[in-house]
Amino acid sequence: MAELPISEHKTMLSRDEKDQIQIESVLLSKIADVVGTPFYAYSENELIGRFQRFRKSFKEPIEICFAVKANSNLAILNSLKNQSSGFDIVSGGELFRLSKIGVDGKKIVFSGVGKKEKEIIEGLHYGENGILSFNVESFEELVAINHIAKNENKIAPICLRLNPDVDAKTHPYISTGLTKNKFGLFKDEIVAIIDEHQAQLKSIKIIGLSVHIGSQITQLDAFENAFKKTDELLFSLKDRLPHLKMIDLGGGIGIQYESEKEISYQNYAKVAEKFFGSQSHWQGSLKLYFEPGRTIIGPAGILGSRVLYQKKSSNRHFTIIDSGMNDLMRPSLYQGHHKVLFDGKLSGQTFKTTVVGPICESADTLLEDYEIDLNTRPGDLVAILNCGAYGFSMANHYNSHPRCAEVLVNQDQFKVIREPETYSDLILREQI
Amino acid sequence: MAELPISEHKTMLSRDEKDQIQIESVLLSKIADVVGTPFYAYSENELIGRFQRFRKSFKEPIEICFAVKANSNLAILNSLKNQSSGFDIVSGGELFRLSKIGVDGKKIVFSGVGKKEKEIIEGLHYGENGILSFNVESFEELVAINHIAKNENKIAPICLRLNPDVDAKTHPYISTGLTKNKFGLFKDEIVAIIDEHQAQLKSIKIIGLSVHIGSQITQLDAFENAFKKTDELLFSLKDRLPHLKMIDLGGGIGIQYESEKEISYQNYAKVAEKFFGSQSHWQGSLKLYFEPGRTIIGPAGILGSRVLYQKKSSNRHFTIIDSGMNDLMRPSLYQGHHKVLFDGKLSGQTFKTTVVGPICESADTLLEDYEIDLNTRPGDLVAILNCGAYGFSMANHYNSHPRCAEVLVNQDQFKVIREPETYSDLILREQI
Repeated sequence: MAELPISEHKTMLSRDEKDQIQIESVLLSKIADVVGTPFYAYSENELIGRFQRFRKSFKEPIEICFAVKANSNLAILNSLKNQSSGFDIVSGGELFRLSKIGVDGKKIVFSGVGKKEKEIIEGLHYGENGILSFNVESFEELVAINHIAKNENKIAPICLRLNPDVDAKTHPYISTGLTKNKFGLFKDEIVAIIDEHQAQLKSIKIIGLSVHIGSQITQLDAFENAFKKTDELLFSLKDRLPHLKMIDLGGGIGIQYESEKEISYQNYAKVAEKFFGSQSHWQGSLKLYFEPGRTIIGPAGILGSRVLYQKKSSNRHFTIIDSGMNDLMRPSLYQGHHKVLFDGKLSGQTFKTTVVGPICESADTLLEDYEIDLNTRPGDLVAILNCGAYGFSMANHYNSHPRCAEVLVNQDQFKVIREPETYSDLILREQI
Repeated sequence: MAELPISEHKTMLSRDEKDQIQIESVLLSKIADVVGTPFYAYSENELIGRFQRFRKSFKEPIEICFAVKANSNLAILNSLKNQSSGFDIVSGGELFRLSKIGVDGKKIVFSGVGKKEKEIIEGLHYGENGILSFNVESFEELVAINHIAKNENKIAPICLRLNPDVDAKTHPYISTGLTKNKFGLFKDEIVAIIDEHQAQLKSIKIIGLSVHIGSQITQLDAFENAFKKTDELLFSLKDRLPHLKMIDLGGGIGIQYESEKEISYQNYAKVAEKFFGSQSHWQGSLKLYFEPGRTIIGPAGILGSRVLYQKKSSNRHFTIIDSGMNDLMRPSLYQGHHKVLFDGKLSGQTFKTTVVGPICESADTLLEDYEIDLNTRPGDLVAILNCGAYGFSMANHYNSHPRCAEVLVNQDQFKVIREPETYSDLILREQI
């Protein structure tokens, strides 16, 4: 694997006349001067551009509920809120984040297999009228929500999450639509809920179905299969669902980390509208919801880092950088590949190196046998690509490294949207 | 895999007459009442007992430098400091932690492939006389330390870390002693440093070698091979090392998560002393250092959690608990197995379930097809075993879950050594 020529990268990155990397029009080195390294930097125009392209790919109005777990920084969420985005949450903590930026409850869906009583109450009481929908993953959860809603004198709006038994052909860790996965309800369970239990569960109101088969999906037919099964089931049930108004088709569109081919938004939209759009047998009676995360913010973020050492051994060469698996879990957790651009004057000649972080584990390896420019030296900056999603949201204090800064770039300006932590942050709340 | 009878567990755990789990003499439920769930609980007597057993396994006095990365809570470190433990650190953040509990610099060794200039300076200036040793991983790092020490008017004490090319036969993520790993110097590189460079590098002083081949090692012969190679090299060099005084034999002793057989401390000690003890050709001239982490604190810690839902599907059964991969990374990162004990009245009959956390990934699976008692119900507490090492130290905010509490139990008392975080902690340092 080799560094890509910059032209092949997202338009948010370029090199100036000295080969220095800029994100939009801000030099990587300028950000490093302010917040040190490592740091996450996001391009606000890339973020907004991707969001808008996703929305415009549909012929009809849809609702986008950004998957907060992909990147939950308040400024990122706020930037999306300003585009009228809704949000898909999976915890009370994520709901708290949305409350801090004043998101309307009717823009929020709550997914996840392990909703706690406290979190369900928070969802019911959010804002003036609670959240739009609890996406329910099991019959037991439905009964629990009904019970809690009754105690709170509320009617809980529900989408039942279908597990369609469709192979998303992605990393097993992020496949969620197989019967062996913990997620969702099987078809016959949904039918049983509607026919046998709905009438008794007086504090819930089923307003739709949801489906989400996994993450980092690059094959359109996986979506098509899932949407088809969802449509068939929902259409067969529609007369028994008096409050039916929405279908939540989840997220999962993959991005190009290495050589993956991205599904085009247009083709994805076409498939969704074929089954659920106004030209389908639904005739415009359903509102369509989507939960993209990675595809919106993933390519819009980089992890800026600095070369600490170049370690030459008889048969190997290591480039040791100052960010590691504490900052970015994806390489060690999912064997994820993130290409790296090196900053500064390029010679055009390359050599092979293994790029590793400072953490005391062999797991902390970013790229093996990666071709980098011969001019690379300790002290040089690097940009690790496609780190906007599942990057900072999984960062931790392993090896007692404080978590790094996050900045948001817009044209020739940037703002610090999370200050770098200090050593003192490591021991907050600890006592001897 | 099935629940073990309590008698097979570490002595720190037992069940009372109602089958309720206690850690030392404190009920799990009593801790949950105070700090909520999930929580990490450590048995101080198990911790101290293991530390003392390790030390007493050696015939001669040794120095134990606890590997701070395994568990870096201040109270745990302080408890070990009270046993005269030293510490093995891998970052400036870990050094900061030790400064907070007043550890003597002469008890600290600093390992790691990516030491930053700032961290090296902190090590040189720590306390009155700096730290005991920088365990150096590359020639480039040695040159950097020499340069920094010169600027600071210091002489840096150095152990050169040998990469002995010994297969530790452990998970590839935590194997560190193979030539393909980023760690350590090869034999010929060490010889070259001593013969060709030592004289020029006037601001360093080589006081010994270190070796560390990995973590969770269960085969004594891997240690024996590494120690043998280290001994041969060091003995051949001893006349060319005027400041030689120590050998740091690292850590890596594995613990029993599932069916692994633990290496006995006695046998391990015997091997180390065979090569380096006063009866060896070293004749007592070397001080022996060890860096155990997991074996000291791993079995002394549990992760307490609560059952949220029991999800029954046609062909699977899930037990969803309120701790996940955000609290404990080992199952998803290393495919680590952690058995679980369920609290409360046992029926003696069991059934099979898959124990999962609340995080929105299939990666968040603790145990597949695990046999638990038929009496298990939502709301029940569980104790996830062997979570003392690489548990909280890797915890993160994924899915915006605040990090949980840590408590230290001693007989019938416990103290909160890390308060549970709140939602507000999630957004500290963020700004829109």
